[in-house]
Amino acid sequence: MILALAGGVGGARLARGLAAILPPDDLTIAVNTGDDFEHLGLLVCPDIDTVCYTLAGINNAAQGWGLAGESWAFMDALGKLGGESWFNLGDRDLATHVLRTGMIGRLALSEITALLAGRMGIAHRIVPMSDDRVRTMIDTDEGELPFQHYFVRRRAEPRFRAISFDGIETARPSTGLLDAIADPALEAVILCPSNPVLSITPILALPGVRTALAARGVPIVAVSPFIGGQAVKGPAAKIMGEIGLATTPPGLAAYYDGLLDGIVIDHVDAAADAGNTALHVTATLMRDLDDQRRLAAETIAFAQRLR
Amino acid sequence: MILALAGGVGGARLARGLAAILPPDDLTIAVNTGDDFEHLGLLVCPDIDTVCYTLAGINNAAQGWGLAGESWAFMDALGKLGGESWFNLGDRDLATHVLRTGMIGRLALSEITALLAGRMGIAHRIVPMSDDRVRTMIDTDEGELPFQHYFVRRRAEPRFRAISFDGIETARPSTGLLDAIADPALEAVILCPSNPVLSITPILALPGVRTALAARGVPIVAVSPFIGGQAVKGPAAKIMGEIGLATTPPGLAAYYDGLLDGIVIDHVDAAADAGNTALHVTATLMRDLDDQRRLAAETIAFAQRLR
Repeated sequence: MILALAGGVGGARLARGLAAILPPDDLTIAVNTGDDFEHLGLLVCPDIDTVCYTLAGINNAAQGWGLAGESWAFMDALGKLGGESWFNLGDRDLATHVLRTGMIGRLALSEITALLAGRMGIAHRIVPMSDDRVRTMIDTDEGELPFQHYFVRRRAEPRFRAISFDGIETARPSTGLLDAIADPALEAVILCPSNPVLSITPILALPGVRTALAARGVPIVAVSPFIGGQAVKGPAAKIMGEIGLATTPPGLAAYYDGLLDGIVIDHVDAAADAGNTALHVTATLMRDLDDQRRLAAETIAFAQRLR
Repeated sequence: MILALAGGVGGARLARGLAAILPPDDLTIAVNTGDDFEHLGLLVCPDIDTVCYTLAGINNAAQGWGLAGESWAFMDALGKLGGESWFNLGDRDLATHVLRTGMIGRLALSEITALLAGRMGIAHRIVPMSDDRVRTMIDTDEGELPFQHYFVRRRAEPRFRAISFDGIETARPSTGLLDAIADPALEAVILCPSNPVLSITPILALPGVRTALAARGVPIVAVSPFIGGQAVKGPAAKIMGEIGLATTPPGLAAYYDGLLDGIVIDHVDAAADAGNTALHVTATLMRDLDDQRRLAAETIAFAQRLR
């Protein structure tokens, strides 16, 4: 049994690789919900949707977010009516947000996610990190901004000063996440190549999660989202730089502060030394399902060698 | 100054004719909100939207409801996710519902309607009959159904037994409607060719409205929605039959029980006699804006002759 922690696009790609090689009962994908936000009265869960759409094979692979074959009539009409148009909601994507928003009082986010994932034909367990409301806030040189306002509306341009997770002190990890950690069959925890600060840290920051993972005694392996110091996608490298951490294997090991047993890194970074943290060198860029499968299989094999 | 009471498609067509010949300050269109409903978490106001879309010239004239050039990707995706698909929400139409739903706690429906109508380029006053929640309920041989469940989901097939308006006892007429009735410049009240039972009656049933209209001393003129006993569109004739009222000029006069000073009827019904209620015979079918203008002008002239 593998527990994967995932956030945005890179995380979803590795999660798809894991799902392609593991039976449904042998994988739990716990997804960051710090990026969730209320927009136009709708509850939008970008990371859950990216993981679901990617596993269902209905994602827009070229764009990196949203659905393949998406259309934008809603956004066009919204703009003409003077509505907020800085966050793109495709016509098809809207169905997910409207359905979820309609259920959120009656059902927990875990239940809604399982329901929608099932309707998308996904057999594997995708669980939100928590059913409680956690909202990532970014302190910047323009003041504190809710995550999507920082990330999308302001295109991550303001200088990042600090991150916090509103609601995290009282949020409980979801049952699905706790069950996976406690599962006697758990063999490894994989930190997907998502943004460490924005996507993985909220999951680890949930009360008890980091401690429980460290105490569990199974290998914890991260797949680095950096290749030659650069993020494959998104502002991870810029943010790591603004925090003062190096986007290198030792930088990543230091950021996770002793949690990791190993890191999967790209050939470009083969010369790196991360001290006590074992390294596995391979091609980490995932361009297609074959790349995703191969990287997932290598990561599992690497973790098993670390037991 | 003219006050027009309107509901669905026929009402919207005459309202457009009135708006085409009257300056914005000389017309108030008060619209039925009994058809409003909450669907998928969205507040949908079909009659307000039909009037707004028609006046803005962005309606789908052939279909009779919704927007021209509408697309249905949302509904397609919703269906694939197992969402309720009996009420069609077009991709563009959705922008109206999402924006309205996002504002409804902070602003009154009157304010939202004015805002959205303004953004559609409409200069004339379109006011909901009330800012309070009124919901038309239809008692049928299948039990009591909320209006849209009866009308759309069940296609008005159950036998109509009685109509009621949930919330009407405590609903206050909107300020816009009350202001129009009290306006010293008011010259006539026009009941548009909307369904009398479903669209006009809720407005008249608001506390004080019927009494205030009757006491106002200006001509009250209905444009008949029936031509040769048939409704131009929708189930009005079926419902009138199930109530036991004739879809004729005297039947309409009897239904409104002394409120009307005159009825505009079609040539087909020229032989009718409605007793004390004056009749104006013309072509009442509105196929285009020219028909709408002409019928609006004739109706105003007829009302002025009745002063």
